[in-house]
Amino acid sequence: MKLDRLYLYDTTLRDGQQTQGVQFSVAEKRQIAAALDALGIDHIEGGWPGANPTDSDFFDSRPDTKATFTAFGMTKRAGRSAENDDVLAAVLNAGTPAVCLVGKTYDFHVTAALGITLEENVENIAASIAHCVAKGRETLFDAEHFFDGWRADPAYALVCLKAAYDAGARWIVLCDTNGGTLPADVGRITEEVIAAGIPGDRLGIHTHNDTENAVAASLAAVDAGARQIQGTLNGLGERCGNANLTSLIPTLLLKEPYASRYETGVTRAALKGLTRASRLLDDILNRVPLRSAPYVGASAFAHKAGLHASAILKDPTTYEHIDPGIVGNERVIPMSNQAGQSNLRARLAAAGIKVPAKDARLARILETIKAREDMGYAYDGAQASFELLARRELGLLPDFFEVKRYRVTVERRKNRRDRMVTMSEAVVVVKIGGEKMLSVSESMDEAGSDRGPVNALSKALAKDLGPYQANIDDMKLVDFKVRITQGGTEAVTRVIIDSEDGEGHRWSTVGVSPNIVDASFEALLDAITWKLVHDGAAPA
Amino acid sequence: MKLDRLYLYDTTLRDGQQTQGVQFSVAEKRQIAAALDALGIDHIEGGWPGANPTDSDFFDSRPDTKATFTAFGMTKRAGRSAENDDVLAAVLNAGTPAVCLVGKTYDFHVTAALGITLEENVENIAASIAHCVAKGRETLFDAEHFFDGWRADPAYALVCLKAAYDAGARWIVLCDTNGGTLPADVGRITEEVIAAGIPGDRLGIHTHNDTENAVAASLAAVDAGARQIQGTLNGLGERCGNANLTSLIPTLLLKEPYASRYETGVTRAALKGLTRASRLLDDILNRVPLRSAPYVGASAFAHKAGLHASAILKDPTTYEHIDPGIVGNERVIPMSNQAGQSNLRARLAAAGIKVPAKDARLARILETIKAREDMGYAYDGAQASFELLARRELGLLPDFFEVKRYRVTVERRKNRRDRMVTMSEAVVVVKIGGEKMLSVSESMDEAGSDRGPVNALSKALAKDLGPYQANIDDMKLVDFKVRITQGGTEAVTRVIIDSEDGEGHRWSTVGVSPNIVDASFEALLDAITWKLVHDGAAPA
Repeated sequence: MKLDRLYLYDTTLRDGQQTQGVQFSVAEKRQIAAALDALGIDHIEGGWPGANPTDSDFFDSRPDTKATFTAFGMTKRAGRSAENDDVLAAVLNAGTPAVCLVGKTYDFHVTAALGITLEENVENIAASIAHCVAKGRETLFDAEHFFDGWRADPAYALVCLKAAYDAGARWIVLCDTNGGTLPADVGRITEEVIAAGIPGDRLGIHTHNDTENAVAASLAAVDAGARQIQGTLNGLGERCGNANLTSLIPTLLLKEPYASRYETGVTRAALKGLTRASRLLDDILNRVPLRSAPYVGASAFAHKAGLHASAILKDPTTYEHIDPGIVGNERVIPMSNQAGQSNLRARLAAAGIKVPAKDARLARILETIKAREDMGYAYDGAQASFELLARRELGLLPDFFEVKRYRVTVERRKNRRDRMVTMSEAVVVVKIGGEKMLSVSESMDEAGSDRGPVNALSKALAKDLGPYQANIDDMKLVDFKVRITQGGTEAVTRVIIDSEDGEGHRWSTVGVSPNIVDASFEALLDAITWKLVHDGAAPA
Repeated sequence: MKLDRLYLYDTTLRDGQQTQGVQFSVAEKRQIAAALDALGIDHIEGGWPGANPTDSDFFDSRPDTKATFTAFGMTKRAGRSAENDDVLAAVLNAGTPAVCLVGKTYDFHVTAALGITLEENVENIAASIAHCVAKGRETLFDAEHFFDGWRADPAYALVCLKAAYDAGARWIVLCDTNGGTLPADVGRITEEVIAAGIPGDRLGIHTHNDTENAVAASLAAVDAGARQIQGTLNGLGERCGNANLTSLIPTLLLKEPYASRYETGVTRAALKGLTRASRLLDDILNRVPLRSAPYVGASAFAHKAGLHASAILKDPTTYEHIDPGIVGNERVIPMSNQAGQSNLRARLAAAGIKVPAKDARLARILETIKAREDMGYAYDGAQASFELLARRELGLLPDFFEVKRYRVTVERRKNRRDRMVTMSEAVVVVKIGGEKMLSVSESMDEAGSDRGPVNALSKALAKDLGPYQANIDDMKLVDFKVRITQGGTEAVTRVIIDSEDGEGHRWSTVGVSPNIVDASFEALLDAITWKLVHDGAAPA
């Protein structure tokens, strides 16, 4: 039996950019658009041409996509023709195959926010949509505040929708702009709209997460007959965010009744890239990915409770609703003082270390972990440091080298040209075998600007490790996360460092200290030691 | 008309503790329990007595609460009587008025995970519940994997529920343990259970957020007739978390049909404490609160889009689904390069700075903000630094003092007793009026342990500010957040510092630099300067 087509419309680059603290560059927008296209999204809304320079530049240089590139704008202002509205002109001049125009459908907004008559508003909608359709664009109408408008005056809200529909809009998008409408109401009102004569295969749904129901409300609209879902990657968006496509996509592909009732542009193969796409967006935003994110979060398939972990070892389906691999995510048996020995053995096995059950050293490792977690360490996210800790307890960690001392200086002062400049310098003394090595390094990059004390330290440390130099030459620090695990002046700092080598192996290490330089140094040392262990380097 | 009573059951201290990276101390559990009690939660589940030392200690020293204190455990194991099951005994020995026992209702789990017969499992449920009821406890039965079990074998799942019900369980809690059941199915199955003879006012719902539908699924169960909701503050919990009470509570109190159909233990007055309770939990967890959190997030009522902001200024209801004050949150007009001049003027007004519309300096301030945000600054969260930036542009910022130079040294080496120790020292030279002041400080706390370079700097800076000493003496650094705004070695560091004075005023400042010490220093300077401005200190 032929499946019904469901369309996915992404607005990460427009509504997503309304997120507090989010501002995309043109290059970043191109990168995100490519990722959305690889997923198989139907429409990519790139922004509002003319509203700000970035968006205009982006449309000029937008990538070629299978997805229908869409420019966002608003219906023409009153007192001028669609042809003579410069804002609308800027949107059309972007030259995209599709345009999405937001307009009012809530009488209160027409009078309170726009300050025009109800009739003028209907006229603006009809004329603007007709104008875009005449220009040969696939035209969408975003019915702003639709659900609030329908509750206040269903007759007028419907007149607005019909105006857009009769003018030839391909999609009429019901927007819950303020995000306060609950799923049951979204479903009921969508049914009422369809009953009033707008076919479901011309209806889209656009929800916000202000009651934490954006995903459920989108599903309710689909259940009622709507066939387009608007949302964003990672649920980015104004206030509490938009409907999260990262959660909706796997649900539509994997869960009933959707899986056997609808088809989308996203293939099972593309679905494997979902976790990567989600993490890419966080990388671009320099955000720590939300561990608890459905499907794609680092904790989404993490089994901390001892009972769960032991059952998982027998059969993963006991505590997993899907196989993490389907969305490109993975199972995690986090190390923590909650965990039982079965977690520990599973995690050691993952590191290639076999320890028989009931081995007394398992209890000792758990105690050490508990003690260190009390100090602020976190091994959930730092598998490499966990592995080193375990190897130490198990007597499987060679002494590669010893750090005798280090000194870092950060100085800010006027330079000769009387400009304030900052410089950092690090001295590290390590002992390898019998030999003592003293290295010094500044922290200037090519541009001659200071990269700070941690950079100076890592350079000094990597400068001369004698017999191990070849092992660390292809190592690079790819990420550096700092968490203050106690607020205020008593702050204890936790540093997590992600390292990568030439073959693309990636590993995470942790350091903890009230002194951020010290914490960083500890994580750096672990990173190098782990590399030496995995290269099978022989202790000098 | 008499309202139906809905009961709220909190499991933050038990299921919430299953969150990756979360481990509560006894003191923290007491603090959270008190906050939950102040909100008006009906049941507080404190943990699993006997499962780990912390939980056992907590029950021994638990606070007095209006809420029904509940101990969690599991049904007795096969092959022994309830009286002789030591695990069950430990739960009862906690001496709580209520106990909640988890048990299996899914045939696959009975055989695969427990490895006992289906009959034995039913016997374990009945005997365990009866035993707790006989001991005079309010007894709850957590039907683990109930929805999966019902789909696989509704007859057996029902037999398990009936066993608990007939044995006298006050509440039968339907658990979607793996979190994969969608709201529509939760609603339908809950109706079927009620139709099968378990009254709705004896049914609870326990969902997880693995498809981002935990809140919606809880509402669906209530719509179907269930009368207890289990969840956690901030949606803490295993994997993707539990149903988020922080989102559910305001929805139940403020949204229809719930507001006029049900009553809960949470009063409108207590609801004002919701945001504080949510932030308290994050403080305890040393987590940065989720800005986009529904109702309580810092961005939940932030209006970034220029169009939204200008409408909000006319009438807040245009873009807000509720009044933020009702949940103890507040409206934010964040500063950002997306914002129009109306945002800017509103935010300046909030800082007590009146600037006429269309004033040319407004555009200049916006440009400066854009330029600095491109460098990595973020003024959304740093109102005090935003205010100083604006005052500088407006010529409203006196020159209080000038920093001529500073130097910080961090050194790690062996001390006399041959132990590795770290020490930090800072020298700061400031010029006030004509006078030059040189201050030096170490970063040792009372315990004589090093608190790091930033601590040393802030101490040296605060040591002698001559005429301003009185202004800064009551200042303290209450929080310190570090964000790497570019990964890898090219990392640029953003530091946000929260400061507080004697009257409890709190303000946030930001500093950005590739050098974390420098970034911290910049934020420290802003914090002091803001205090001097607001004290109306006269420039020396």
